[in-house]
Amino acid sequence: MTLPHAKVETPVFMPVGTVASVKAVPQHLLEELGARIILGNTYHLYLRPGHELIRRMGGLHRFMSWNRAILTDSGGFQVFSLNELRKVTEDGVQFRSHLDGGAHFFSPEHSMDVQIALGSDIAMAFDECTEYPADYGRARTSLDLTLRWAERSKRHFEAHKHERPWNQVTDHRAQGSDISPDAMPSLFGIVQGGMYKDLRRESAERLVEMDFPGYAIGGLAVGEPREVTREMIARTLEWLPKDKPRYVMGVGYPDEIEEYAKMGVDMMDCVLPTRAGRHGLVFARDADGNVVRMNIKRKEYAEDAGPIDASCGCMVCARYSRAYLRHLFVAGEPLGLTLNSLHNLHFYLATMERVRLELETAS
Amino acid sequence: MTLPHAKVETPVFMPVGTVASVKAVPQHLLEELGARIILGNTYHLYLRPGHELIRRMGGLHRFMSWNRAILTDSGGFQVFSLNELRKVTEDGVQFRSHLDGGAHFFSPEHSMDVQIALGSDIAMAFDECTEYPADYGRARTSLDLTLRWAERSKRHFEAHKHERPWNQVTDHRAQGSDISPDAMPSLFGIVQGGMYKDLRRESAERLVEMDFPGYAIGGLAVGEPREVTREMIARTLEWLPKDKPRYVMGVGYPDEIEEYAKMGVDMMDCVLPTRAGRHGLVFARDADGNVVRMNIKRKEYAEDAGPIDASCGCMVCARYSRAYLRHLFVAGEPLGLTLNSLHNLHFYLATMERVRLELETAS
Repeated sequence: MTLPHAKVETPVFMPVGTVASVKAVPQHLLEELGARIILGNTYHLYLRPGHELIRRMGGLHRFMSWNRAILTDSGGFQVFSLNELRKVTEDGVQFRSHLDGGAHFFSPEHSMDVQIALGSDIAMAFDECTEYPADYGRARTSLDLTLRWAERSKRHFEAHKHERPWNQVTDHRAQGSDISPDAMPSLFGIVQGGMYKDLRRESAERLVEMDFPGYAIGGLAVGEPREVTREMIARTLEWLPKDKPRYVMGVGYPDEIEEYAKMGVDMMDCVLPTRAGRHGLVFARDADGNVVRMNIKRKEYAEDAGPIDASCGCMVCARYSRAYLRHLFVAGEPLGLTLNSLHNLHFYLATMERVRLELETAS
Repeated sequence: MTLPHAKVETPVFMPVGTVASVKAVPQHLLEELGARIILGNTYHLYLRPGHELIRRMGGLHRFMSWNRAILTDSGGFQVFSLNELRKVTEDGVQFRSHLDGGAHFFSPEHSMDVQIALGSDIAMAFDECTEYPADYGRARTSLDLTLRWAERSKRHFEAHKHERPWNQVTDHRAQGSDISPDAMPSLFGIVQGGMYKDLRRESAERLVEMDFPGYAIGGLAVGEPREVTREMIARTLEWLPKDKPRYVMGVGYPDEIEEYAKMGVDMMDCVLPTRAGRHGLVFARDADGNVVRMNIKRKEYAEDAGPIDASCGCMVCARYSRAYLRHLFVAGEPLGLTLNSLHNLHFYLATMERVRLELETAS
């Protein structure tokens, strides 16, 4: 399928551009890698540089010079994962900035306002990401709150979605944008329910009743065993309409994204390719096509003149040796972060592109 | 003129690739910027990853995938500037690694061996960089030592220059290299003499007697007033042959490189464009063409939608705003280092290219 408002064919992998940058990678190289849509973190952008500043600058696309699609998360995940002193009420979440300890408050309405100010193409409903492990009662309570927040998110989003930043500026987009400036953004609902199938089912069915243009499966990859992740995804996919994008948030390793895409997941995002790259972890395939994780700083690569992956078509493997990448990492050279991240992003994007073509051929 | 063994027209600015990387800039972007020759630091490469490793990998060009020309310094400057506990004898310098405190020894012969192992296209004689201020007697003693070391450097270099790394490997260079693999590297002498004209003259004349294929003017930009730097350069240029490359080491600000190039300097290198970029300092020109230094982190740029320099033709100014670059810097995003460095390198390279064309037209 094609995502709303964007020339993005699914299944698609979305690199994470946390705070208006896919870390260490210039935008034109991200384009060369073939990234069609990236994710912006609402929590981080709200704190720095601030959504109002980005709105005044014409929106996130224009601010960071990225003309392709942008999905924003709701801020919920970071509010819950980066804040030990958060206070959840029916109205929303009181939390402290991880940067300076300042007090902030996020409600479903505020999350929508922030995402609209950013100019997101696909926004996410504000949800409580249920911690793991959570007992049944806790998962039930959390799910119910998330469903009420989903309704409030939708109501507020529909009433204000036309207030996109470029409605206030004229030269709002560079030529060649993938997205029509007249297109309205979409809001996706998020399935929660912990690791309980009946709660996941209830969450999915009640969201489908609300009729979102797309659905995310949230609250996974939070520490549960991988078989549980897979089972939760497999079951939840059954309860979501196949003609709407289905998005699994925050996963995963390259073999996972391939597996989930083949199960029917349309969209995924993960910080792993860039975060792992910055820690010297790069992905390759062995002769059988299985994913191999290489720690580039290992001594065995010190004089290895071969590329990370001889079968890889990326600009890093075409030019640089393992020995050089190891040296950059060991010497703390910033170029190492960029090259490792470029390779890993290519690895993810090429994997997803291959799966997409395989699925297209099979159908 | 054209530098030996390389399609490099002078005057030329050489970005500094300290430890086999021009910091934060991928090689293919350095090529796009038009860099024809870069500098490698012998001291840093000797310590990490080690010149023997680089030799076994086929030389620095191949190790870092840089097919254009490379000049290496002698290691002398870092030995003297990064080591408080160094011990200088007639034979050479005992020093401690700034990385782990390990004991090392550099002699003129060893510096030549390291530079030959790196596969340098233009090597530099091992010199003592006279500290500033230095009294006449100290500058005299230091100069005499440097001249004896220049003779030893030349003798050893001529005897061993054919031992370049790729004489031991077959597929030693990618296609499209600027440098013929059969070409022998060149060794330049270095004029010292502190801030004393008669010593500078003696240094220049005795080096010219030794007949080097090019001459550097060292020991400047070490803390002396700029008028003194200019005067030392102006006078020393008179005593060096005009048909051989004349290289001023380690300078300077953009207006300085323009000024010195117009005085007759053929080659310059400086860490400033990349180092300043990493500290958020970017160069621009005002309406009169004068160089302006901008501190990109200043609040006044927070919502500035314009590029660093509207008259600049670089890929950064074509795409990114001051507001975005400020945000990247304030948020500590690694992309900021890359973009600021790219802009500054373009600024230096474009300045030098303009001066080269002006001089060509005038002659």
